[in-house]
Amino acid sequence: MVALTAEKQDRKLLSRIAAGDGHGENSAYFDGWKAYEENSFHPIDRPDGVIQMGLAENQLCGDLMRKWVLEHPEASICTPEGVDQFSDIAIFQDYHGLPEFRQAVAKFMEKTRNNKVKFDPDRIVMSGGATGAHETVAFCLANPGDGFLVPTPYYPGFDRDLRWRTGVNLVPVTCHSSNGFKITVEDLEAAYENANIPVKGLLITNPSNPLGTTLDRDCLKSLVNFTNDKGIHLIADEIYAATTFGQSEFISVAEVIEEIPDCNRDLIHIVYSLSKDMGLPGLRVGIIYSYNNRVVNIARKMSSFGLVSTQTQHLIANMLSDEDFVDQFLRESKLRLAARHAELTIGLDGLGIGWLKAGAGLFIWMDLRNLLKTATFESETELWRVIVHKVKLNVSPGGSCHCHEPGWFRVCFANMDHKTMETALERIKVFTSQLEEESLNRTKPMAKKKKCWQSSLRLSFKDTRRFEDGFFSPHSPVSPSPLLRAQT
Amino acid sequence: MVALTAEKQDRKLLSRIAAGDGHGENSAYFDGWKAYEENSFHPIDRPDGVIQMGLAENQLCGDLMRKWVLEHPEASICTPEGVDQFSDIAIFQDYHGLPEFRQAVAKFMEKTRNNKVKFDPDRIVMSGGATGAHETVAFCLANPGDGFLVPTPYYPGFDRDLRWRTGVNLVPVTCHSSNGFKITVEDLEAAYENANIPVKGLLITNPSNPLGTTLDRDCLKSLVNFTNDKGIHLIADEIYAATTFGQSEFISVAEVIEEIPDCNRDLIHIVYSLSKDMGLPGLRVGIIYSYNNRVVNIARKMSSFGLVSTQTQHLIANMLSDEDFVDQFLRESKLRLAARHAELTIGLDGLGIGWLKAGAGLFIWMDLRNLLKTATFESETELWRVIVHKVKLNVSPGGSCHCHEPGWFRVCFANMDHKTMETALERIKVFTSQLEEESLNRTKPMAKKKKCWQSSLRLSFKDTRRFEDGFFSPHSPVSPSPLLRAQT
Repeated sequence: MVALTAEKQDRKLLSRIAAGDGHGENSAYFDGWKAYEENSFHPIDRPDGVIQMGLAENQLCGDLMRKWVLEHPEASICTPEGVDQFSDIAIFQDYHGLPEFRQAVAKFMEKTRNNKVKFDPDRIVMSGGATGAHETVAFCLANPGDGFLVPTPYYPGFDRDLRWRTGVNLVPVTCHSSNGFKITVEDLEAAYENANIPVKGLLITNPSNPLGTTLDRDCLKSLVNFTNDKGIHLIADEIYAATTFGQSEFISVAEVIEEIPDCNRDLIHIVYSLSKDMGLPGLRVGIIYSYNNRVVNIARKMSSFGLVSTQTQHLIANMLSDEDFVDQFLRESKLRLAARHAELTIGLDGLGIGWLKAGAGLFIWMDLRNLLKTATFESETELWRVIVHKVKLNVSPGGSCHCHEPGWFRVCFANMDHKTMETALERIKVFTSQLEEESLNRTKPMAKKKKCWQSSLRLSFKDTRRFEDGFFSPHSPVSPSPLLRAQT
Repeated sequence: MVALTAEKQDRKLLSRIAAGDGHGENSAYFDGWKAYEENSFHPIDRPDGVIQMGLAENQLCGDLMRKWVLEHPEASICTPEGVDQFSDIAIFQDYHGLPEFRQAVAKFMEKTRNNKVKFDPDRIVMSGGATGAHETVAFCLANPGDGFLVPTPYYPGFDRDLRWRTGVNLVPVTCHSSNGFKITVEDLEAAYENANIPVKGLLITNPSNPLGTTLDRDCLKSLVNFTNDKGIHLIADEIYAATTFGQSEFISVAEVIEEIPDCNRDLIHIVYSLSKDMGLPGLRVGIIYSYNNRVVNIARKMSSFGLVSTQTQHLIANMLSDEDFVDQFLRESKLRLAARHAELTIGLDGLGIGWLKAGAGLFIWMDLRNLLKTATFESETELWRVIVHKVKLNVSPGGSCHCHEPGWFRVCFANMDHKTMETALERIKVFTSQLEEESLNRTKPMAKKKKCWQSSLRLSFKDTRRFEDGFFSPHSPVSPSPLLRAQT
């Protein structure tokens, strides 16, 4: 009763946004984080705690960063070598940002796109992380009630970033496991036609979060053509541009539009960030790169709501201007990511657990469809609860990513050390053994079911391998780079 | 024709926000900045350039900051003493912020309010500067179409911060020079009654931007009672809390609500920042302190759109935890501000130019009503153009602050060195002499007019002195502190 009264009072006193639950934190994606926060794994202090595999964080190259920082004291305003600039930097608050920051970021964006395209520093607009960047783009492109098409599964945070305060809707474009969740023009057309609201754009993540896949050139061209034909915007979230490894190739929309004659570039926008490729999420460096002059102008003004600290702009400008360091960092990062990815996937392969073949991002898309009691999201949630609270691994269920098919889970692998990954794999092994044992102890029909599960798990793995050319043989020995071994 | 087509296209392709001009940059306030940017004063390179007196920036204590930073290398993640924390800090992205950051900010907020109130670190919500803080509060408290009462004159940026993306309206409460622009309950009632939209709150700046005045206890109490009675919110922007000097006393709303029995604290919210009191606008440390649990919860989630860089949180947490430094800094800052304020106002007094008696903020409210050809905003703009383009001082006309009476100008004094202030005063002196000369050279009726202007200028100064108890005799010798002299 008291709670109800408080809620009623909130509705009267506060805005609809504040009184409502549009933030979307009541999803399994965030619940898993809470479970982790309440009982975080620690190898010595809390060895039975929850291991965080729900956070797409890149912790594999922190040592390279530390080394560079120590070797470049002039890059910081807090060292004897850099302090003369303290006052000038600390008072700078122009929403254009430090010119050297924009130049360095543009150059870095070129590097992370294999130097195949040029980026104009004057189109670099900063924002408070990719979170702020997405909201800004939504404010620029759509009115409340308008919609953006978003292929599923998609990053759960988009419901907050693009919808919450803007009043904009996300219109899911249903993708299917049968073709590896590829985005097809047919699925786009269907979603566009069935949307009962004005559709203002298409939002893609490339590399994909949560799939870990990259879009090939033909697919990207088809998306540019589709959006151009409809006269709607294409927003490409490329925050994992350099987080690709093995044989996975990332192609930026910036490259593809060069190849399309008469492309209407006023409709093309890129969201970028240093949180993933450089592993610096705390520094909140989000970037909007738009080919539309008006959007650049307005987004820059909006950046006043979430400017990057100039202390950070200054450090980043210096760091990214060191091209040798950036080259070495990106090279080494790819090696370490590949090794860690291999460690996880070889482990899963050994347990007969499937995953979508992909080589980008900080996660894999794990296939547990055959562990579901029924092919429903209720069963997925039930299994997810067991994984979080019994197996004590915080992974994200596909349902929280708006996946159309129950049974898929996003599993992050780069936010922990080697030992923790070993522990996580050991837990999965124990879990699957228990499942097997339970099954054997049950009545005959149950045992039959189990048998079916086992073979179908293997089938599932084979299925997923079909989707893309394999670049890791499931059991090939992929050695971590020497630096990684030294680190972990 | 081309421009029209582009505009039409913008309206079709982009959001109403992006296609419109709600940002408010087409005001004299921002135009003056542009004039400065195009031709900035430099004592050697561009001695005839525009002097920036439109920017409320506190540059007077940068040397103290530099000294502290050098003496505390452990406070930075970019020094040998602090680099071990680089990775942990750079990956931290929790919207609660670093616990030590919130604790240090709460303590600092107590100090800047003379340790008369306690602030709970768990109510500290960070945001991208006060700009982001205000927008967040507006998103939490009001729906599009709702309004906030705002006493005039008010900070021009509020039109952007609270209205632009939220769709909220600002309802001016007309204040008058006849009582020193005090906020009266009568004026509030009138604005509240005449607003044809749902009024959700009252927004005040205390100390006032642009007036430089502080609200006394009785006035503050009347504002709390007024808003409580109406069941609407009170948002107190206190970003100049420690930027008070001389005999000017700042009283926080946090102190006053302790003295009001049965005050509904769910309606009380404070916006704070380190941009003014610490002179660190580039670091984008904005704070929302709400007594409403739901607002704390929702605003914290919204802070994801503009988190403070953890590199900066870490530095600030260390700096503000050094209580001896903070005490010394605030003490010295007040001395230097007082000295600079005296330098400007004594100069103006000598020229017979009036200003509103006040001792807070980084500006004075200059009275040039008697230099207007007619008592209109057209004449104010005309005079302002002369001041910016001929006298080459970028000051902000009262009209851009929504002042009800033409002829007032905001003049910033803490964003320059002593020499530049001397140059600015010299330019004003030359300008007033020219006016006098022109007047004498004119026909008899004009000379008469000039005579009238001269005496009325003096009258105007006397008038403004009446508003508050004087704390600087216009010609008293106020010496800059030794540190200030060393700096300037």
